[in-house]
Amino acid sequence: MNRSYPASSVKKNISKTVSEIAALVDGAAVGDAAISIYGVNRLEYAMPGEITFLSNPKYKKFLAQSQAGCIIIPHDFELGDEYSSRTFIRHENPYAAFVQLLRVFVPEKRYQEGFIHPSAVIGQLSVIAPTAYIGAGCVIGEECVIAGNAVLVGNVTLYDAVTIDENSILHANVVCYQETVIGSRAIIHAGAVIGSDGFGFHEVENGRFEKIPQVGNVIIGDDCEIGANSTIDCAFVGSTIIENGVKIDNLVHIAHNVVVGENTAIAAQAGISGSAKLGARNRIAGQVGVVGHLETAPDVIVHAQSGVAKSIQTGGHYFGSPAKPHGEELKILAALKHLPELVRQVTELKKLHEKD
Amino acid sequence: MNRSYPASSVKKNISKTVSEIAALVDGAAVGDAAISIYGVNRLEYAMPGEITFLSNPKYKKFLAQSQAGCIIIPHDFELGDEYSSRTFIRHENPYAAFVQLLRVFVPEKRYQEGFIHPSAVIGQLSVIAPTAYIGAGCVIGEECVIAGNAVLVGNVTLYDAVTIDENSILHANVVCYQETVIGSRAIIHAGAVIGSDGFGFHEVENGRFEKIPQVGNVIIGDDCEIGANSTIDCAFVGSTIIENGVKIDNLVHIAHNVVVGENTAIAAQAGISGSAKLGARNRIAGQVGVVGHLETAPDVIVHAQSGVAKSIQTGGHYFGSPAKPHGEELKILAALKHLPELVRQVTELKKLHEKD
Amino acid sequence: MNRSYPASSVKKNISKTVSEIAALVDGAAVGDAAISIYGVNRLEYAMPGEITFLSNPKYKKFLAQSQAGCIIIPHDFELGDEYSSRTFIRHENPYAAFVQLLRVFVPEKRYQEGFIHPSAVIGQLSVIAPTAYIGAGCVIGEECVIAGNAVLVGNVTLYDAVTIDENSILHANVVCYQETVIGSRAIIHAGAVIGSDGFGFHEVENGRFEKIPQVGNVIIGDDCEIGANSTIDCAFVGSTIIENGVKIDNLVHIAHNVVVGENTAIAAQAGISGSAKLGARNRIAGQVGVVGHLETAPDVIVHAQSGVAKSIQTGGHYFGSPAKPHGEELKILAALKHLPELVRQVTELKKLHEKD
Repeated sequence: MNRSYPASSVKKNISKTVSEIAALVDGAAVGDAAISIYGVNRLEYAMPGEITFLSNPKYKKFLAQSQAGCIIIPHDFELGDEYSSRTFIRHENPYAAFVQLLRVFVPEKRYQEGFIHPSAVIGQLSVIAPTAYIGAGCVIGEECVIAGNAVLVGNVTLYDAVTIDENSILHANVVCYQETVIGSRAIIHAGAVIGSDGFGFHEVENGRFEKIPQVGNVIIGDDCEIGANSTIDCAFVGSTIIENGVKIDNLVHIAHNVVVGENTAIAAQAGISGSAKLGARNRIAGQVGVVGHLETAPDVIVHAQSGVAKSIQTGGHYFGSPAKPHGEELKILAALKHLPELVRQVTELKKLHEKD
Repeated sequence: MNRSYPASSVKKNISKTVSEIAALVDGAAVGDAAISIYGVNRLEYAMPGEITFLSNPKYKKFLAQSQAGCIIIPHDFELGDEYSSRTFIRHENPYAAFVQLLRVFVPEKRYQEGFIHPSAVIGQLSVIAPTAYIGAGCVIGEECVIAGNAVLVGNVTLYDAVTIDENSILHANVVCYQETVIGSRAIIHAGAVIGSDGFGFHEVENGRFEKIPQVGNVIIGDDCEIGANSTIDCAFVGSTIIENGVKIDNLVHIAHNVVVGENTAIAAQAGISGSAKLGARNRIAGQVGVVGHLETAPDVIVHAQSGVAKSIQTGGHYFGSPAKPHGEELKILAALKHLPELVRQVTELKKLHEKD
Repeated sequence: MNRSYPASSVKKNISKTVSEIAALVDGAAVGDAAISIYGVNRLEYAMPGEITFLSNPKYKKFLAQSQAGCIIIPHDFELGDEYSSRTFIRHENPYAAFVQLLRVFVPEKRYQEGFIHPSAVIGQLSVIAPTAYIGAGCVIGEECVIAGNAVLVGNVTLYDAVTIDENSILHANVVCYQETVIGSRAIIHAGAVIGSDGFGFHEVENGRFEKIPQVGNVIIGDDCEIGANSTIDCAFVGSTIIENGVKIDNLVHIAHNVVVGENTAIAAQAGISGSAKLGARNRIAGQVGVVGHLETAPDVIVHAQSGVAKSIQTGGHYFGSPAKPHGEELKILAALKHLPELVRQVTELKKLHEKD
């Protein structure tokens, strides 16, 4: 298959010399500092004309064979004679220096201010700031407010009375149901659905369900990021709340009336059941499930595939299904390996006793 | 962050006095029954002008501080003197009375009958009932039938020969592949994909796959609800069937040739593998997995994160991966906590024996 | 509910006699070979005029009651006298013969070559092959390349510099972020998001996150299939790579910088964390999680709901969370059933000792 490296690295006509880059990141150039760099890449894939970095000693094996034009290395990294003809930048934090360069060589897409594509449909009484961008195929309901520099990429659908604050971007196919509120500088990735009905029914005769109207909304704070195809249900009544600074990965489910505390992160495919309240700075790993109507303290870390079945009162690491303090679960997992042997041992001990 | 309560509660110019509300829900007003109510909210967030309810004694702690204009309380609830200036409605089922009020204060969005947005694209030989609503950006294939009062909100895509029965609503970005059949009064939430190809391949040389054509369809019965971004694959041949009254939450996966029995509910992120048949009135909790080609009896309840690995012959609660009768799994989970200690005990017992 | 069988079987005016079919699949007709067949179906649902097959002896019970016009049966299948008036085709592989007939009776949808719907929006410098099909509501960015016979069904969104190779089909609502590369003959199902930002942040003060720009892309090889609403994140830098022949089911999450080896299959709702490298011909079952930065050997099979927590060096079956060799996990699961009894036994043994 074609593994040509991303076009971004070549097409953009961005070029800097190693000495310019060294000055930019406050590092020290070693070797030919006049070399021109056109892009960024990882150590094992970088080509001449690309800059990369080496931080983790684990990746040292890729150093000799790397074709990179320049490699950012730790301050005190020992370079053998075989590297005398190569070019480096010494830096006290190569990774941070590299991250600083990403947007230099791959600038963020700029959406034209004040652009509304003629195919976009905008409902009555909606207000679009003069600096907002509304892409092709967007369908915006009535009484919406789109603030300054907000971007709706394309094929975004907003129901009525949706509010998008300044500098937020809604990627393609995002759907916001009625009265969704999204704060400033939010990034909502493609296909995310915000404000769909909570899963609320009551059983009537013969197990048949009647729908309980879900009349609340979703409020997303400032500086949040919501992953692709994630779903956040509206509240039964009141609001499902995603506090400021929350980062949610792809395919995550947030049920009705959940509150996610400030600066909490939730990894892919995790699910938070109805009315649960996650504390601030929680770290919820992938495929975790959280039962409804419980609370977690601030600074709780839940490891992958765990199931949080009870409220968690104190910060720290939790693991397992049901989730326990991490160390406890590790002990159980370690013991489990010996369980078949244990069964055998106990059977033997019983026999010995019966003999006695 | 801005936690202003949903605009629905204020904007709609809906207002009722407490005495009007008491008459409506057949309850007894206590206090100033002339107070005007404009909206609904939860006890802890309700503002003056909003009505709320208290059912669960657990939430009694929010009563004193609630700013609600009126609170629906149980018939026999004891009110201290501190509440003598507040307004209540006594009711034998406060929650039911409150649910009855939801659509009074937050009416459902009405879609204009007989509206087809000019941007909608409709294929040859498709028939749209004169009372249906087809929103902006909808793309409808050939030979489709959209029955009376059906609603396609916006950016919905129907392939060829799709049938949507009366009073059903397809939210934004719903996709129905060819020959999907959806019954009456269905609610299909945003981003749901109905009828995508089943995951069917056969291995040829060197682990390479050849696709097995998936030529069947999906049939969804009456009164079903399908959650946001859920996926229901078409049958390999014949139909994947969702029976009447089935409720499916967000991000659920239903594989090809599955049959989901009448009035069954499936919570978020559960997955049902190919050709499985779920009985009527099953309750499948979040993140459950069901293996292919098995059957469950009616009235089976599977608890969260379980893995159903064999057919289940009798109704009741099941739990664990693999799923077992609930009580059995609870005993194992309880014993697991003691496992590390057990290992130690057995080691000691062995030592004692060796000494003997 | 209406369980009428798919319209495809009746509407298309496709008809073949049993003798024509027998010749086509190289089988031997038994009974009235002049019967006309109009469609395909499963044994238990097939109607007169439909052809079906019997392979698995388990389904023999459906034979007597089947109304099928013709049934493909194994070469050496013993037919009782009760079947003397029925029509069959004997074949050494009834299933293979049946699969061969699927596209005869249900031909694949043909998209018109060289069609660009007037509602499609195409950015500057994008090149669309004269044989490609661009459906209604598609939004294509700048500098994209759509090769010959590629199909974008409807409401597809491509960001800038996306490349789609020959004969690939992108179903409704597919989104490809900038610089996504998709090979030949790929099938991308509805709602899949390719190239969304990886989940990369670093913590600054008070648990607050700062976004690490995700400047890489996604490269999907030839002959891949990606399921509905699955998400594949772009690389932090460089490429997330899906090798040739990979098949991915619905609602799967592939994180940034993952490499999925050739001809690997990943079932629904599985998740592969950042920078993991799956070997060739892996078989990842449903709801499996794979931890980041690890590698699996070729020919690894991971059973459902497992959690792969360490690199796997050799092919074979793995199971459990954390994943172990399959046999090991089965022994633990078997022993677990006896755990509550084991606790009781050990307690008794201890008592006996204390008495001693």
